[in-house]
Amino acid sequence: MQHENNVLPARISRIIQKFSVYEIDSLIFFNMNNIRYLSGFTGSDGVLIITEKKIILLVDGRYTIQAQAEAAGIEIVEYRDKISGISGAARDLDIKHIGFEADSIFVQLYNQLIRQLPDKIMVPLGEELKMLRACKDETEISLMKKAAEISSAAICGLIPEIKAGCSEKDLALQLEVMARRSGADQLAFEAIVASGENSVLPHAKPTERKIKRGDFIVIDFGIKYCGYCSDETCTFVFQQLTAEQKNAYQIVKRAYEQAVAAVRAGAAAAAIDQCARSTFGEKYGRYFSHGTGHGVGLEVHEAPRLAFASPDILEEMMVVTVEPGLYLPGKWGIRIEDTVLVKKNSCEKLTKMDKELIIIE
Amino acid sequence: MQHENNVLPARISRIIQKFSVYEIDSLIFFNMNNIRYLSGFTGSDGVLIITEKKIILLVDGRYTIQAQAEAAGIEIVEYRDKISGISGAARDLDIKHIGFEADSIFVQLYNQLIRQLPDKIMVPLGEELKMLRACKDETEISLMKKAAEISSAAICGLIPEIKAGCSEKDLALQLEVMARRSGADQLAFEAIVASGENSVLPHAKPTERKIKRGDFIVIDFGIKYCGYCSDETCTFVFQQLTAEQKNAYQIVKRAYEQAVAAVRAGAAAAAIDQCARSTFGEKYGRYFSHGTGHGVGLEVHEAPRLAFASPDILEEMMVVTVEPGLYLPGKWGIRIEDTVLVKKNSCEKLTKMDKELIIIE
Repeated sequence: MQHENNVLPARISRIIQKFSVYEIDSLIFFNMNNIRYLSGFTGSDGVLIITEKKIILLVDGRYTIQAQAEAAGIEIVEYRDKISGISGAARDLDIKHIGFEADSIFVQLYNQLIRQLPDKIMVPLGEELKMLRACKDETEISLMKKAAEISSAAICGLIPEIKAGCSEKDLALQLEVMARRSGADQLAFEAIVASGENSVLPHAKPTERKIKRGDFIVIDFGIKYCGYCSDETCTFVFQQLTAEQKNAYQIVKRAYEQAVAAVRAGAAAAAIDQCARSTFGEKYGRYFSHGTGHGVGLEVHEAPRLAFASPDILEEMMVVTVEPGLYLPGKWGIRIEDTVLVKKNSCEKLTKMDKELIIIE
Repeated sequence: MQHENNVLPARISRIIQKFSVYEIDSLIFFNMNNIRYLSGFTGSDGVLIITEKKIILLVDGRYTIQAQAEAAGIEIVEYRDKISGISGAARDLDIKHIGFEADSIFVQLYNQLIRQLPDKIMVPLGEELKMLRACKDETEISLMKKAAEISSAAICGLIPEIKAGCSEKDLALQLEVMARRSGADQLAFEAIVASGENSVLPHAKPTERKIKRGDFIVIDFGIKYCGYCSDETCTFVFQQLTAEQKNAYQIVKRAYEQAVAAVRAGAAAAAIDQCARSTFGEKYGRYFSHGTGHGVGLEVHEAPRLAFASPDILEEMMVVTVEPGLYLPGKWGIRIEDTVLVKKNSCEKLTKMDKELIIIE
């Protein structure tokens, strides 16, 4: 992604403004999505150190040229060994209280690091950084709209290709090819195409199972466009629909609609989850076996979390999924999902497929 | 993957036999590849606890049914909250000294866990577990051979499709489609198709750049088959070859051949790296900007590491890549890579493309 010149400095300024609250004079980032968000660097490995005066991006030799091109205006330092690279940089900088992402650094790396930096005070930041990327800016929203558009069009384009005898794997591949041909850089996650009894697994992998009459087909699909993810689920039925299936679909659809209607700035994420959950009632409640949704952005799962015990509060410009599902063991599953943009008093659907039940003939 | 019945218990026995050396009575796994290796469970989240008497796999509601099907013979416990799930299980078990993968648990999760388990002694294991999956068994080798076969065939099948005006993205997509149609479950990593000046980036992403006369085209491709990865790189030249390109290719090929010839059980990984590195000489040495190779298995990058400062020693049945490269800033890059199986006195190439320079007409 080509960043507008003013986006990255603004993001970094926002972080630096929090330094006094966090009681730190520097912050070291290991999470590659956070590093991309703050520096523009899209490589798979690196470390970003931010102080009030200086920003340094440390990378290994594979990424020096790329980092120089992508993280314009940031000092690039090449390391051979990550720990020595970080500790060398930290010693050269006039810093003492170093904040770090406690949820992105492994215990082993952390222990090695503090051994090299005995005179620094390491300040674990967890909740403080969790929402770093949760509220999107206009640049991000436009990329996410494009991502959603590409993936919805692929799902829509797949419908005429769904025929008796197609395997789940065939369909997943066709979906991916259509999305890539329309500009998707990569998948946000391996596409789920789960039919018949396989649809009972919320995270099913496509198999050789062939589509047949009466199947529910759960398609959970998302792509990346300039780093940003989309996430959408449609459940279709193939040729024939039983009364039980129709009824179950309507229950999930009602849960989805009520949750979507509750999404707005200021709403508690747990309340959105409860809103979806309550529509299932006693008979079906235990078959809705996952949370109602999650934030989406550079990662397909990021903050906030729309789940039972989530402490998160929705804010304007957050992007979240709403995806209730119903999975009847030994029978079939249904899931309906949109990615939505949180607005002041409502939300806007970014993903585009209509969620009326489609019977594929 | 359907495991043969005797593979998983043998892997778990090997771990339990080490408990006394590690001074632990239990081991808790967070790394999903290790969990798959030990239990057969292929989900994206879960925790495996092994004691001498009992094995428990903890999963959230999304994965209960899948875990029961895949991890046959292992007790499945569903949790709502991971930390409570683990600490509840740990309290119920008669354990005191709990080993854990220090390189797979984040500082935050670790800190939450020890707060819940004040009377347990947590024993960080790093180097001890690094080689857990490094030596493959026959089942794994046969899957890796199949993975390599599929991805080599896709690279070979792509050659006639490479034409002036094709974009890198087009070619990457064709490669993927061919591999998936031949049985690849997914890509091991996003395919690299880097042409002309883009080939100078070892980890380039495919772009809209169109292939033209005189380009080097670096194709670094790997797939997953039943969880196991392949990894191979070919560098082709398109229509026209300069003397400088020919010479540079021969240097990389010599480095590759000499390193491959040095791979055998008992060899130091750093010596293999040195073997490749020394052939570049003073003029080109600094343009070989990454390590010579890495282990491959359930992860595309795993132990051992064939690099400058690696302490690893190769053993029979390890599978590693050999992939020297040369990247001339502002010009072009070349990389040649095979995945090889370490044998007693030599190695066997699993990836199948011949590495003579191919001039595509």
